[in-house]
Amino acid sequence: MERLRLRATGRFFRYCSNRSLFDRRLNTNSENSIHNSTSGYAHGFGKDCRDFHFFSDNHKRNVQTCFGFLRYQGVTFRDSAEKCLLEKTRGFQYRGFGSLAAKVQRNPSFSTLNYDDISYFKEILGEKGVIEDEEWLATANTDWMHKYKGSSKLLLQPRSTEEVSQILKYCNSRCLAVVPQGGNTGLVGGSVPVFDEVIVNMSLMNNIISFDKVSGILVCEGGCILENLITFLDNQGFIMPLDLGAKGSCQIGGNVSTNAGGLRLVRYGSLHGNVLGLEVVLADGNVIDMLGTLRKDNTGYDLKHLFIGSEGSLGIVTKVSILTPPKLFSVNVAFLACSDYFSCQKLLMEAKRKLGEILSAFEFLDSKSLDLVLNHLDGVRNPLPPTVHKFYILIETTGSDETYDRQKLEGFLLHAMEAGLISDGALAQDINQASSFWHIREGIPEALMKAGAVYKYDLSLPVEKMYDLVEEMRTRLSDSANVVGYGHLGDGNLHLNISTAQYDDGILTQIEPFVYEWTSKHHGSISAEHGLGLMKANEIFYSKPTATVSLMASIKKMLDPKGILNPYKVLPHS
Amino acid sequence: MERLRLRATGRFFRYCSNRSLFDRRLNTNSENSIHNSTSGYAHGFGKDCRDFHFFSDNHKRNVQTCFGFLRYQGVTFRDSAEKCLLEKTRGFQYRGFGSLAAKVQRNPSFSTLNYDDISYFKEILGEKGVIEDEEWLATANTDWMHKYKGSSKLLLQPRSTEEVSQILKYCNSRCLAVVPQGGNTGLVGGSVPVFDEVIVNMSLMNNIISFDKVSGILVCEGGCILENLITFLDNQGFIMPLDLGAKGSCQIGGNVSTNAGGLRLVRYGSLHGNVLGLEVVLADGNVIDMLGTLRKDNTGYDLKHLFIGSEGSLGIVTKVSILTPPKLFSVNVAFLACSDYFSCQKLLMEAKRKLGEILSAFEFLDSKSLDLVLNHLDGVRNPLPPTVHKFYILIETTGSDETYDRQKLEGFLLHAMEAGLISDGALAQDINQASSFWHIREGIPEALMKAGAVYKYDLSLPVEKMYDLVEEMRTRLSDSANVVGYGHLGDGNLHLNISTAQYDDGILTQIEPFVYEWTSKHHGSISAEHGLGLMKANEIFYSKPTATVSLMASIKKMLDPKGILNPYKVLPHS
Repeated sequence: MERLRLRATGRFFRYCSNRSLFDRRLNTNSENSIHNSTSGYAHGFGKDCRDFHFFSDNHKRNVQTCFGFLRYQGVTFRDSAEKCLLEKTRGFQYRGFGSLAAKVQRNPSFSTLNYDDISYFKEILGEKGVIEDEEWLATANTDWMHKYKGSSKLLLQPRSTEEVSQILKYCNSRCLAVVPQGGNTGLVGGSVPVFDEVIVNMSLMNNIISFDKVSGILVCEGGCILENLITFLDNQGFIMPLDLGAKGSCQIGGNVSTNAGGLRLVRYGSLHGNVLGLEVVLADGNVIDMLGTLRKDNTGYDLKHLFIGSEGSLGIVTKVSILTPPKLFSVNVAFLACSDYFSCQKLLMEAKRKLGEILSAFEFLDSKSLDLVLNHLDGVRNPLPPTVHKFYILIETTGSDETYDRQKLEGFLLHAMEAGLISDGALAQDINQASSFWHIREGIPEALMKAGAVYKYDLSLPVEKMYDLVEEMRTRLSDSANVVGYGHLGDGNLHLNISTAQYDDGILTQIEPFVYEWTSKHHGSISAEHGLGLMKANEIFYSKPTATVSLMASIKKMLDPKGILNPYKVLPHS
Repeated sequence: MERLRLRATGRFFRYCSNRSLFDRRLNTNSENSIHNSTSGYAHGFGKDCRDFHFFSDNHKRNVQTCFGFLRYQGVTFRDSAEKCLLEKTRGFQYRGFGSLAAKVQRNPSFSTLNYDDISYFKEILGEKGVIEDEEWLATANTDWMHKYKGSSKLLLQPRSTEEVSQILKYCNSRCLAVVPQGGNTGLVGGSVPVFDEVIVNMSLMNNIISFDKVSGILVCEGGCILENLITFLDNQGFIMPLDLGAKGSCQIGGNVSTNAGGLRLVRYGSLHGNVLGLEVVLADGNVIDMLGTLRKDNTGYDLKHLFIGSEGSLGIVTKVSILTPPKLFSVNVAFLACSDYFSCQKLLMEAKRKLGEILSAFEFLDSKSLDLVLNHLDGVRNPLPPTVHKFYILIETTGSDETYDRQKLEGFLLHAMEAGLISDGALAQDINQASSFWHIREGIPEALMKAGAVYKYDLSLPVEKMYDLVEEMRTRLSDSANVVGYGHLGDGNLHLNISTAQYDDGILTQIEPFVYEWTSKHHGSISAEHGLGLMKANEIFYSKPTATVSLMASIKKMLDPKGILNPYKVLPHS
């Protein structure tokens, strides 16, 4: 059990999330029942707890969650804590998702794979690049959460852009549907076949092509695992501008295709700002070279943005050029109390002004969120005296100078206290305290799972309106549920969670479609950072007007007239 | 002459660059000859001197340039310095551009305006919104540099998105070509008619719609003048993430349409990262609402990016939502000497790491650039002892804490000196010294103009390769020219300037197409931030492969099948 020593590290996570390895283990442990019963749990956490980052190297504080998950697979751990966690999730395994995948019919215009097809693929990729192994395919047909399951009979592993091009050119001519697959860590069913689509797995295109230490510009193939890029850059004194919990498995091509958000967005912005260039293969096999490595280039339409966030439905990302920031070593964390939501907003405003250049996180939770954590998680304690405050804020700063950055943060906190914006607060004195502060914020999803059934919504909303939804929902549901709100205030990203003792269809009808309609009315987004995939393709109109969706459909039609690339995803299929 | 007291301020610039007002004054002063003889001069500076920012409020250090320009209009100033400047530019007025506009033929499929068309426009816009005044049209037909001149007979001034929609729907049905026009400050002929296109002037759509002080998200109409937005935000404690010299006239819709770069790009990134949403009217009058105000929104393709930098050829930007950073008050400037280009690169790398969060400019110039400034500009002195260094670097930091930021910069400089990266340096002790340091960097274009003929190239290149081009050009031209290199090292933006006593076609053939081929070979961009417009539409292949340009053309065809929007621009017309 050597691998268990690596638990909760990036390496272990990679092991877990590499389905081909992982599922081979599961085969000895009644695979289907395990898959079904853990999916709700895995997603429930993944959705709100920063994309499974509790599994990763830098976030060992959620190690118990990781253990809980693994224990359920029948693996024995020395540590026996958190036994009850998964038991409680069994009863509402799918219900934590809120929305279920819509029913879809196979597009009858797609061909079915035949012997000649496979022979052709073996010609261009060699025997090794053409996978028909049932076990391997069972893994690749299923998403990370085991919520979606396709029935593909073929997985292809190209080693070059030219091979990707040949595959797509052939599939397009034969009208064979294709699903591009990176690390398969997506949460909306975007990276697995819905029916019998050919899986194009990008894992072998994992070379770093160049790195310019002066400009910080990295160029690599789309199949590079995010954590490998992070490690490579760390040795050069740089960081990736995005960091996800799934970094041990997810690939940069997939990150770009889903416009992954993650932990560093508040500081470094989205991939639309950081990705400098892409090489993409279109459905007909045409290679579009937009692989610029320049910060400034105004020569024609900037087409790469079409592919950032298009979830593999417009083209397969084969190469990525990305601007990487220098690594900064000084990190400080404060846990603060506010008496009302207006103070939280004002504090955010002040933090942006006073800490602007070093601010790296601004998270908030309400008192009900804190209560949940204190009541349901072992070893968590309130860093503040036990007076009840209505809101709590976690501020993190990251900069280049330990002494000055800390003085700056202390000065800011003193000012905020004097101005009455914060009613109490604590500043972490060491990395352990900083981790314990983070654990409160990050422990909320786990505490919610322990508390019973949970209805989870991951929404983008204007900051000023954000908490109104929580309060309206509270009024709407009255005593029938515990409504909690927390999230990335700095990004305008609310995690609205509704906790009840048991799952109840009556409650769900009170929540949906109200929550989507409310979000839509306030120009919010029903998918802040996970994309639409299969899960929410039909819900797009809650966030996008008809004319805009029609234009998206026209672009899809133009770039992929036969619709072979990742069908049934992103755009409405009904 | 009240206005002269406002010289070199934003207000004065707005007066100058508002063509309708400006040209009315010029009518009394032999308009045509003035326009022709100043265009090369104005462009020569505008192109390399950060887009005319010497005219603006915050950059009074170039006031002499402003005076020179204005004196030529026949206006009397008390200050009589810089008399010879414009005289010298007369002989090569167009030659400073490097590339001239390609010859184009009017598209015969476009209709010609008739009486019924004008009646219809008066119905939807009222009499006041339909301009046929010859003087006004003469102004609107001519670009800022007077390099391009159309022959439009009609200018329309819509007041709402609905009116823009009605205009375009009608023009599309009648096959009337249209040119969208904001502040008309572009440098590549993108904002004026080529033939008789109807001008859609956006000036009256200048309302600020909302500003969220917590998130810093501003929503406004496309016709808002950049400086008005800057002033509005200043009162709220925020800044625009872009700042241009042309801010007194240019409009945010035009900035977005040209993906304007400007002074703050090294710190805040491009508009692709800062623009959160757009409302755009397509050629057929359809309104596409992408006016999100969210930092995170992954619901479908992010179509707004198609319109950022498409130079009005895909749609007219009617509303903009943009993320604005908080205003920071602490600014420091250092002028440093490096013995070789490798040290410059290493210093940039170190500055990114050590000053990362406060670094706001990293400019470089070679010794030949400094010599030019010292020899040709009055009142400029070298802040360093007169030892010859091969390169000079200007570093600016902007942060939230005067004391700490300065100490941080001083510490960095000490370290860089000890590490041998800089051979000498001076840190500005007050705003006057800071301005004088900036004046050296910003005075180079003016000094070049005074030195004689100049061939100017504004290129994006990988930082490590950037200076190789300067040296290769020096070898290529030998003693026949003075080749100087300077620019925004932090952005990878080189200004390659070749100075000769007189203009010579023989020299030009030695420079072009070599300079474009070299740029292309090193994956550079032939247009770093000004777009292609009419001037470089046919040169796009130096920076973009055929398949990518074909895809751009397909998108143009899809969104504007009749090609009525800003024809002859951006994409090749031959």
